[in-house]
Amino acid sequence: MDINSVIEGILQKIRPTEGERAFLNELMRELEDLSKETIEELGLNANPHFVGSLAKDTYLAGDHDVDLFLAFPLETPLEELRERGLELGKAIAKKLDSHEVAYAEHPYVRATYRGVKVDLVPCYNVKGWKDVKTAVDRSILHTKWVNEHLNGRNDEVRLLKRFLKGINAYGSEIYVRGFSGYLAEILIIKYGSFLEVVKNADLMLKQRVIDPEGWLRKEPESAMKTIKRETEGDKPLIVIDPVDPRRNVSANLSWERYGVFYFGSMNFLEEPSINFFFPRRSNNGDYRLELRRKGSHILTLIFNKPNLVDDLLLPQLERSARGIEKVLERENFRVFGWDVGYARDWAFIMLELDRLEREKVTIKEGPEFFTRNGLDFYRKNERVWIKGKRLYAEKTIEENVMNVLIGLIGRDQISLGKSITDSVRNTDVLVDYVPKELEQRAYLFLSKEEWNLKKQQ
Amino acid sequence: MDINSVIEGILQKIRPTEGERAFLNELMRELEDLSKETIEELGLNANPHFVGSLAKDTYLAGDHDVDLFLAFPLETPLEELRERGLELGKAIAKKLDSHEVAYAEHPYVRATYRGVKVDLVPCYNVKGWKDVKTAVDRSILHTKWVNEHLNGRNDEVRLLKRFLKGINAYGSEIYVRGFSGYLAEILIIKYGSFLEVVKNADLMLKQRVIDPEGWLRKEPESAMKTIKRETEGDKPLIVIDPVDPRRNVSANLSWERYGVFYFGSMNFLEEPSINFFFPRRSNNGDYRLELRRKGSHILTLIFNKPNLVDDLLLPQLERSARGIEKVLERENFRVFGWDVGYARDWAFIMLELDRLEREKVTIKEGPEFFTRNGLDFYRKNERVWIKGKRLYAEKTIEENVMNVLIGLIGRDQISLGKSITDSVRNTDVLVDYVPKELEQRAYLFLSKEEWNLKKQQ
Repeated sequence: MDINSVIEGILQKIRPTEGERAFLNELMRELEDLSKETIEELGLNANPHFVGSLAKDTYLAGDHDVDLFLAFPLETPLEELRERGLELGKAIAKKLDSHEVAYAEHPYVRATYRGVKVDLVPCYNVKGWKDVKTAVDRSILHTKWVNEHLNGRNDEVRLLKRFLKGINAYGSEIYVRGFSGYLAEILIIKYGSFLEVVKNADLMLKQRVIDPEGWLRKEPESAMKTIKRETEGDKPLIVIDPVDPRRNVSANLSWERYGVFYFGSMNFLEEPSINFFFPRRSNNGDYRLELRRKGSHILTLIFNKPNLVDDLLLPQLERSARGIEKVLERENFRVFGWDVGYARDWAFIMLELDRLEREKVTIKEGPEFFTRNGLDFYRKNERVWIKGKRLYAEKTIEENVMNVLIGLIGRDQISLGKSITDSVRNTDVLVDYVPKELEQRAYLFLSKEEWNLKKQQ
Repeated sequence: MDINSVIEGILQKIRPTEGERAFLNELMRELEDLSKETIEELGLNANPHFVGSLAKDTYLAGDHDVDLFLAFPLETPLEELRERGLELGKAIAKKLDSHEVAYAEHPYVRATYRGVKVDLVPCYNVKGWKDVKTAVDRSILHTKWVNEHLNGRNDEVRLLKRFLKGINAYGSEIYVRGFSGYLAEILIIKYGSFLEVVKNADLMLKQRVIDPEGWLRKEPESAMKTIKRETEGDKPLIVIDPVDPRRNVSANLSWERYGVFYFGSMNFLEEPSINFFFPRRSNNGDYRLELRRKGSHILTLIFNKPNLVDDLLLPQLERSARGIEKVLERENFRVFGWDVGYARDWAFIMLELDRLEREKVTIKEGPEFFTRNGLDFYRKNERVWIKGKRLYAEKTIEENVMNVLIGLIGRDQISLGKSITDSVRNTDVLVDYVPKELEQRAYLFLSKEEWNLKKQQ
């Protein structure tokens, strides 16, 4: 299929309709009025600001959450900003349909209004990077910068975002480590269009540094410090934030996700297809057939999900999976890979293994035979022999991987995520079988469907 | 049991009777007469010398091979020595019961006479170490030196030899690498008695160098050179040959066999028993039960035995076993140990493995994704993904160890002993089963019965 036809077809699907725009404009006007009114009622000194993809007109059709930031004067003490900000958010939200308090660096309010999710986030009303005090303060500056530089290329951003989502490279969350929306916008501003970004996937990796605002001239010291730090951190890309030379916009982008983008771009240019944007995932694979095809085994730990947000929970699960991988390898089981996640109120760690049973008797290496330790080893063991100068002995071991794992957990010999240690201690361990809810996930894991660089079209 | 009673009991068994002595004395007299007569008949200039344990009166009862060396004058050219020596040997042997030609550094004749094996070996009639020209020339000097220094402690040598045989540490052949008879004699001369040798097992390892003839004073340069060379070779013991300062009598003694002697001595002193000298080997073990007990597997290669003497064949089999071990480990099978040998006209290599089947699909590590090689790897493979900066791909592999091994042999990917490569190429491979003739051997191998330092009593 011709590349322009593909792009035209995608645009039809992702460009918001006039109806959606009108609805959102009205919604935003209402929310602004409501906010101003509430600020007055509470006698506060604050300004409402719309930020995010809606404010930048880079959202995808049907995907329009509202980010309403409540900006307080710089001289407001942090403690007061938190209290008053949350109070204000709650007061506004009371006039909407429903709400709850959520926690990031500081607490904020998540509301819904007319079916749309509305985040009410307190922040400082910063004018430039030197004012920035909290993690969210830059959002207003980002929105302003993008709006000043995008020059009508909003649909190009939409294309790039949809492409990144389609190939599974979108999202800057710590458990994704892909491209953020802001990064996509900067790339469009830098390269001019979706197609140009995709064509530059290789080159931008080689050049490594992108500096759209020219900080290397204007603030060389800060910019160079950022480049040095991020180079040492071996980041695939260094994009000096147009609104803050101290920050790499793509600090969280992993080599893996960059690689997905790299091959995705290459494949798309070679054989354009709408499947890159809207992949047809084969959802009917059977994990049991995969196990048989590969001759491998799956071990699944299922335990209570601790009450943590994804940003905290998932890294802890990953850390635990790595810990389990390490000890199982030490115990002579080969771990081909692992996956973590949760469903409803339980979390899981899945591991793919080469076998379920190992030999019952293994060989233990001892010290040199003519030493004092050698004598101890000789006395302590039943069957002992020498190879070279060293003593060796037979050691009877547990052969079943499930028992090995449960034993290791019981003896605290696995490095687990701190906040989930207690849950894991009471884990169930399933062998070559997963609950209904995980069947799909197990299939994707074993088949590598999700990560296979060749399955994007 | 009291140590002296044990020793007394053993001496009863290993000291030759008067009847055996009388028979052997007559035999030797006859052989000497026959030899002299034949030398005269052939008009040769040579002298018959008895060497070895018979000539030194250190043989064990019932174990009395005759070593009859035919010593030619030093000025005889080597080529002539070989020809005339073999001719003379054959001429003598014709007067005996049967004979054949055997090959070492040079050919010699193996005959039998009145049920006793008689080796007829040509050599030079050397007077001292500077005359030594061939490997066997020292034997006459050894015999002379031992006879001059043993001072009636012949039975002590018998005890030590029997002890070394019992614990499985006797024999200087390259596939044994234990204590030679001459080394046992030197140790008795040095320490005075069997018990003193055994008590010094630890100390002599620490002192490392034994120099009974005082070569370090008389020939410091040669002796030091020997010590330096053997120290660099990391030999457990350096015994400067009383008849040749350039030679370490225990050059072939391995750490393993020294260790067997070390623990055997310790155990014997703690709990004396005749079992150290005459072990009761449990010969009724079942290798199939061992496989079940250990949860491991046995793989046996059976192939035509090439026509080679043990000294050549066994090292080649060992080399091949090591080659097979190496490739199987690379292929993700764990090799716990191996054994080699032969029976009748076939040779074998046995390996103990952790499993017979591995996973069907494994993971192949590729290059970094953004390189030219990365692109090739990406194009060549079906399922490809990224971890860190590197590409990985699935690879379908043969799961059955027998097929893996046969494939590797077929593709010449195993380093085998040179002279047996062709035989191994046509090998049969048996899995968890051995022919009747190897059942006992397989049991000893799997149970480590023979090597277990704790099973000597």
